[in-house]
Amino acid sequence: MEKQALLYEGKAKKIYSTDDQEIVWVEYKDSATAFNGEKKATIAGKGRLNNEITSLLFEKLTKAGVENHFIKRLSETEQLVKRVSIIPLEVVVRNVAAGSFSKRTGMPEGQQLHKPIVEFYYKNDDLGDPLLITDHILELRIATTEQIEVLKQKALKVNEVLLNYFNDKNIRLVDLKLEFGITENKELVLADEISPDTCRLWDKDTNEKFDKDVFRRDIGDLNTAYEEILKRLGGSACTK
Amino acid sequence: MEKQALLYEGKAKKIYSTDDQEIVWVEYKDSATAFNGEKKATIAGKGRLNNEITSLLFEKLTKAGVENHFIKRLSETEQLVKRVSIIPLEVVVRNVAAGSFSKRTGMPEGQQLHKPIVEFYYKNDDLGDPLLITDHILELRIATTEQIEVLKQKALKVNEVLLNYFNDKNIRLVDLKLEFGITENKELVLADEISPDTCRLWDKDTNEKFDKDVFRRDIGDLNTAYEEILKRLGGSACTK
Ligand SMILES: Nc1ncnc2c1ncn2[C@@H]1O[C@H](COP(=O)(O)OP(=O)(O)O)[C@@H](O)[C@H]1O
Ligand SMILES: Nc1ncnc2c1ncn2[C@@H]1O[C@H](COP(=O)(O)OP(=O)(O)O)[C@@H](O)[C@H]1O
Ligand SMILES: [Mg+2]
Ligand SMILES: [Mg+2]
Repeated sequence: MEKQALLYEGKAKKIYSTDDQEIVWVEYKDSATAFNGEKKATIAGKGRLNNEITSLLFEKLTKAGVENHFIKRLSETEQLVKRVSIIPLEVVVRNVAAGSFSKRTGMPEGQQLHKPIVEFYYKNDDLGDPLLITDHILELRIATTEQIEVLKQKALKVNEVLLNYFNDKNIRLVDLKLEFGITENKELVLADEISPDTCRLWDKDTNEKFDKDVFRRDIGDLNTAYEEILKRLGGSACTK
Repeated sequence: MEKQALLYEGKAKKIYSTDDQEIVWVEYKDSATAFNGEKKATIAGKGRLNNEITSLLFEKLTKAGVENHFIKRLSETEQLVKRVSIIPLEVVVRNVAAGSFSKRTGMPEGQQLHKPIVEFYYKNDDLGDPLLITDHILELRIATTEQIEVLKQKALKVNEVLLNYFNDKNIRLVDLKLEFGITENKELVLADEISPDTCRLWDKDTNEKFDKDVFRRDIGDLNTAYEEILKRLGGSACTK
């Protein structure tokens, strides 16, 4: 497999084409961003941590039967994934009130929800990733009614698998953000990353935060927090 | 009927008890507010206009079979309505993109929607009246699944009746905000007001705005705009 042209550089990753049309090469960057890019920093080592954690979690999901884009990890900061056309929705699943959910609803952070809630945000930096209701998604022709239902069911399944997995590692999966895409074969699969950048992960006993809130709220060292997650998941530094 | 204690003073109206437990006396104030109360003004005559317009529209809705709180208009600025327990949701129906819908979705103001869209906002000034999805409403125990469906159907019915009514007066009903409540007899009925404060009303030919956007955006005289609506609806000043 050969790394070719840079197709897209996002806030956290670079995507390159390969000699196979259906496969892209992902490079995890050492950059941290929050509040729609308003807060930024370079944090050496972050790319490795997210690449390793994402790889572990996608492998777990594959074993649990969740179709996804992941093919394999290549190095400390690189992985191969199936190329998809990303559906511009951030699919958020919440188990516990936190962040924008608490701001919106007035429910205090840490309050357990009666059941997991799925939210859809428009993946659109110019608009500030706003919350959408089903009728907005339909009006904007982002997805069909059937696709919305599939996304919801798949997101709940991912949440269920990872909730139990993290629970075994003494971690509370508070919420997580997922992205889905359509492959060349028109399959709707889970894509992007699942990492402490895209989940809220709290220690089950102390509620200590091991996720991007450490960076957003300046309440600790990001690498230390993400290393703790990687350690609990049983991962280790890649030695190539 | 006797006006008694002030029960509640809101941004636009005062609500008084009467000698009948099931009836409240509403007084429309001469105050204009926007952006969750951040922008404020006293505009003499506004109370009369909204009281008269609301009265006309609720009478129209009663004739069309939409159950509502309206009993009768008492004076230029007063009316009697059935006392309800307000469901803390602002139920918005949109026919055309405008305002926060355009900001959220990126659809330009004035673009016709494929079909009317119903949105629910949390009626909560402290939280800034945020958009809610169905699962938020359920989690917050604001309404049941059945009630949400009833609210949606009733809101669409109100919209249909008023869309046609305004259309006959050469006015485009762009969007409108409704409130519903539960009566002593446990009936879910339309309540609050329907006025240029709570609707977007554009001239069908010129798109001239005859609603609160005139105040929000400083693009004209509020009384002149609201008078135009009252005139087109065939209303006139109450002479007691
Ligand atoms: N399998 C895939 N195929 C193509 N694009 C993908 C795939 N997985 C993720 N992406 C996209 O790669 C881009 C880069 O990721 P990231 O740096 O996180 O971007 P962003 O700044 O948009 O969050 C994102 O637009 C993401 O949706
Ligand atoms: N039939 C009714 N019975 C009781 N309260 C009502 C009724 N209709 C409207 N209300 C409530 O009266 C209050 C006063 O109205 P308003 O001045 O518009 O208040 P706000 O500042 O909350 O918009 C609002 O809380 C409104 O929901
Ligand atoms: Mg991203
Ligand atoms: Mg009001």
